[in-house]
Amino acid sequence: MTRFSVWSPDARKVAVALLEPGPRRVQPLTAAEDGWWTAEIPGAAHGTDYGFLLDDRDDVLPDPRSSWQPRGVHAPGRVYDHSRFRWSDASWRGRPLPGSVLYELHVGTFTPEGTLDAAAARLGHLVDLGVDAVELMPVAAFSGERGWGYDGVCLWAVHEPYGGPDALKRFVDTAHARGIAVVLDVVHNHLGPSGNHLKEFGPYVTDAYATPWGDAINFDQAGSDGVRAFVVENALMWLRDFHVDGLRLDAVHALRDQRAVHILEELSVAVDALAARLGRGTFLVAESDLNDPRVIAPREAGGHGLTAQWDDDVHHALHALLTGERQGYYTDFGSTRTLAKALTSAFVHDGSYSAFRGRRHGRPVDRARTPAHRFVVSLQNHDQVGNRAAGDRLSGGGPGERGLPLERLKIGAAFLLLGPFTPMLFMGEEWGASTPWCYFTDHREPWLARAVTEGRRREFAAHGWQGEVPDPQAVDTFRRSVLDWAEPAAGQGRHRALLDWYRALIALRRAHPEFTDPDLTRVHVETGDTWTIMRRGRFRVAANLGEDVLDLGPADLLLTSGKAGPDRMVSVWGTGVAVVADGGVREPT
Amino acid sequence: MTRFSVWSPDARKVAVALLEPGPRRVQPLTAAEDGWWTAEIPGAAHGTDYGFLLDDRDDVLPDPRSSWQPRGVHAPGRVYDHSRFRWSDASWRGRPLPGSVLYELHVGTFTPEGTLDAAAARLGHLVDLGVDAVELMPVAAFSGERGWGYDGVCLWAVHEPYGGPDALKRFVDTAHARGIAVVLDVVHNHLGPSGNHLKEFGPYVTDAYATPWGDAINFDQAGSDGVRAFVVENALMWLRDFHVDGLRLDAVHALRDQRAVHILEELSVAVDALAARLGRGTFLVAESDLNDPRVIAPREAGGHGLTAQWDDDVHHALHALLTGERQGYYTDFGSTRTLAKALTSAFVHDGSYSAFRGRRHGRPVDRARTPAHRFVVSLQNHDQVGNRAAGDRLSGGGPGERGLPLERLKIGAAFLLLGPFTPMLFMGEEWGASTPWCYFTDHREPWLARAVTEGRRREFAAHGWQGEVPDPQAVDTFRRSVLDWAEPAAGQGRHRALLDWYRALIALRRAHPEFTDPDLTRVHVETGDTWTIMRRGRFRVAANLGEDVLDLGPADLLLTSGKAGPDRMVSVWGTGVAVVADGGVREPT
Repeated sequence: MTRFSVWSPDARKVAVALLEPGPRRVQPLTAAEDGWWTAEIPGAAHGTDYGFLLDDRDDVLPDPRSSWQPRGVHAPGRVYDHSRFRWSDASWRGRPLPGSVLYELHVGTFTPEGTLDAAAARLGHLVDLGVDAVELMPVAAFSGERGWGYDGVCLWAVHEPYGGPDALKRFVDTAHARGIAVVLDVVHNHLGPSGNHLKEFGPYVTDAYATPWGDAINFDQAGSDGVRAFVVENALMWLRDFHVDGLRLDAVHALRDQRAVHILEELSVAVDALAARLGRGTFLVAESDLNDPRVIAPREAGGHGLTAQWDDDVHHALHALLTGERQGYYTDFGSTRTLAKALTSAFVHDGSYSAFRGRRHGRPVDRARTPAHRFVVSLQNHDQVGNRAAGDRLSGGGPGERGLPLERLKIGAAFLLLGPFTPMLFMGEEWGASTPWCYFTDHREPWLARAVTEGRRREFAAHGWQGEVPDPQAVDTFRRSVLDWAEPAAGQGRHRALLDWYRALIALRRAHPEFTDPDLTRVHVETGDTWTIMRRGRFRVAANLGEDVLDLGPADLLLTSGKAGPDRMVSVWGTGVAVVADGGVREPT
Repeated sequence: MTRFSVWSPDARKVAVALLEPGPRRVQPLTAAEDGWWTAEIPGAAHGTDYGFLLDDRDDVLPDPRSSWQPRGVHAPGRVYDHSRFRWSDASWRGRPLPGSVLYELHVGTFTPEGTLDAAAARLGHLVDLGVDAVELMPVAAFSGERGWGYDGVCLWAVHEPYGGPDALKRFVDTAHARGIAVVLDVVHNHLGPSGNHLKEFGPYVTDAYATPWGDAINFDQAGSDGVRAFVVENALMWLRDFHVDGLRLDAVHALRDQRAVHILEELSVAVDALAARLGRGTFLVAESDLNDPRVIAPREAGGHGLTAQWDDDVHHALHALLTGERQGYYTDFGSTRTLAKALTSAFVHDGSYSAFRGRRHGRPVDRARTPAHRFVVSLQNHDQVGNRAAGDRLSGGGPGERGLPLERLKIGAAFLLLGPFTPMLFMGEEWGASTPWCYFTDHREPWLARAVTEGRRREFAAHGWQGEVPDPQAVDTFRRSVLDWAEPAAGQGRHRALLDWYRALIALRRAHPEFTDPDLTRVHVETGDTWTIMRRGRFRVAANLGEDVLDLGPADLLLTSGKAGPDRMVSVWGTGVAVVADGGVREPT
């Protein structure tokens, strides 16, 4: 006996088609309240393939809330019983975001196997590194085998090539057993261009707004109550049924919603209520390019009440300073003073003019009242690497790209991991992976495949890029993006040196509460044209980006990336970074 | 000597063309900061006709900030020196919105002359009525002679057929002399379809958003800083240079702005600062259909900080109850209970389902903390009358429309004027004008004229309207909308009876502070299917919409619209409304 239900407010009739195993059967559903159709069907159970028939159409459509699409998003789904999985994480109470180090990974390229089970087998590496939470790029089912995951269309199902729903549960269960929380990237602002049957069921999308990526979700037009419920319940489902600890909400600036209660507020209310019910911590992290503190402000203060938001300004400040790049949005960044503003104020654009946008942008963060951990920052992430023409990392990896010198990578890591915000690493960053991480797709419709291949080539040509643009549709573009685990396993060399550096920084961060102090008013940064010193309590993180010697005076040297001066009188000799403690210095020794 | 300046960030060169009087002269402007062009030109002064030349074009364009367009919006403008006017209102310190009664008027149809001077001559009527502030429908210059004013394109100029800028100053000065404040309706969400040269000067409009009425103003795309400055400074200009007391901001839901600082907040900051500088009260009133308390919430609480907003739910609750109409948005209104909710909670749609919108709508007002005067409410207004197919008022006026019985009009007026909100009358409402107030236009482009005539006919046909739809372009449609001042002058009859009723209600409202008590938690409403009793302190406003007798028990009868029972034991016999005081009742007499 299985209860089937589906929301289809404009349908005149709805039936469920039961497929294998057993003979094909069609059973009508009964209209219930608010556009729902429902029926209890004997003989259907976990493993029964099924789909829905709308009105007089004879094509079987996948359930918009299907948990399992073993044959892809274009085929019927399979009944999935969440209660069958045997969890072993009963004692898990969540891991709070404050103080955590996040690690973003893409299941398909984290391991050669490209599965959740293979990823779970690598969690020891993250434990050794000191990671607190892994952030999975989207796992919702999308058309094709390979992809970043932002083209999802079956938003309740786990992409089958990753292992399907059971594999995600095994991954989360294993992570929890190892003390690691799991954050899942979910996309609620648009639907992928292929395999979207939602709009046949109801007013899921709207043409009142446009997104660059596909149909915009309908949050404020007629019929949007059911769509909002779909989104909110989808969020709750991952947290409840898959034991996920937090969600990363993709591109919330594209959640176009003019209602008096914004969908983000509705989401945060629902997630907080679920957390109370489950008795474990959950959190929501927004990707936002609005530089609007309202996203993370408490609901009582007129905010949306999310736990945290991505803060790209910190990335741009670090990236432009370390690389010297000034193209695109880096045009507004690059100086040590910009980095200082990012580290102390979270937003560089806090109402200031953005040349990239051709207008003022953002609003100041209330430094005295906004805990710094509400900003998730990175030195690299899937966007900042993968949206480069060649998919090259700071450590290299693109065709002909040698990457930054080791000392510069170490400087970036030091500000990332000892700065006030919630740091997030991008898989492989910690050892300076030499593999690129490219934009790859696997569209099956020839028109779409061509549009993506040519569109990407055109886009970078328009920006003056002269080099190669890997074809997103080519299998090789995907394969080259897979991490090479021989690199961190090597006993010495550049990869090992960087990995040791990341481990040491994370250990330092964990050892001293000054580094996770959330009070932005206690972050002090001094700069010169070629140096930056960030003070965190009795510690100083001092980066020299020039050729000259940077004198730090007497201090205890905790960590240095390169050549430092004789102990007690610390200097950084040329490009490099040193972490020093001033605590005991004033006492005579 | 006149200083000319214009913002045109993308122009390669800009010149000013000086026209009559004197020979035509062209003088180049010099590029200054932020896209501005400027020059001091000798020989030009108040009265000199001029326009701008962009790049190598030879058509003379009106100044986007022209104050005076004596030959219409398609022609060059005239230099206007604000300092020449001799104001006599030096002692005027403004009139605060709390407690005020507003009166909306359209200059073109308020008097047969259709001018500001003629309107000023009628202010005595408003003083006698007890009005505190007159709200002028838009006076910014638009294409053609006749129109509602929402198609403005020269947003700094006063429509010449109304008398031009000096006439507006005379109107405001006269109003202030009579103790009446002036609110001006300004349109910052779109530009009219004809005569819009702004977009030739800079990125004033955007296609990122659409409005139903014309090009959307660019508040958040590239180049929008200059556009926002244009809008903010336009608002300040009316308040400062024309001594206007408040602005009514048209359709703020169409001010599409995703920036972290919304244009409404930027406006309210600037207007508050100006008020402090001027030493007199100013206020901003939004027309908003969002039912979002954020519009009027203080900025410190995450709101936009406007003084007040229109609240159409109160109108709809009254209109649907009194008329029995249920078409369009009235479908969600009509019961006495809906009226009770409107009177006690401001928003009927405070998150509840709106059948008209096909979704939940709005958010609750914090009754304990939001003063009721922040909601401007009406029984009739230009939209609610003029956007009816026949432009008929509650009192009649449409072809074949007899209007509501006098007792029902009086019931509506009693809830409007003795209720907790800021009441606004629509010109002529107070005497139950028998003239309609239609939608009228005067487009000169044949395609536009045809589109408006046919569009309006189609619109109402689509909604099942069988009657006549007056042609907006016909002069007669405009002429029939002009008030007939013989009506209120009549010594008796329906018009006189209603006018006396309105005067008596306003006098009562002014005599007893209970009626302007802004605390929504102290408004109590009891209802039956056919009656509604609103308690305001020791007063009761009791409306009987049925045939039966409504007993109010012992009370002092202050005012009754119809047949009431014997004094001390008050009853309302059939349809009618009574205002009673319970104060002294409990003491034996």
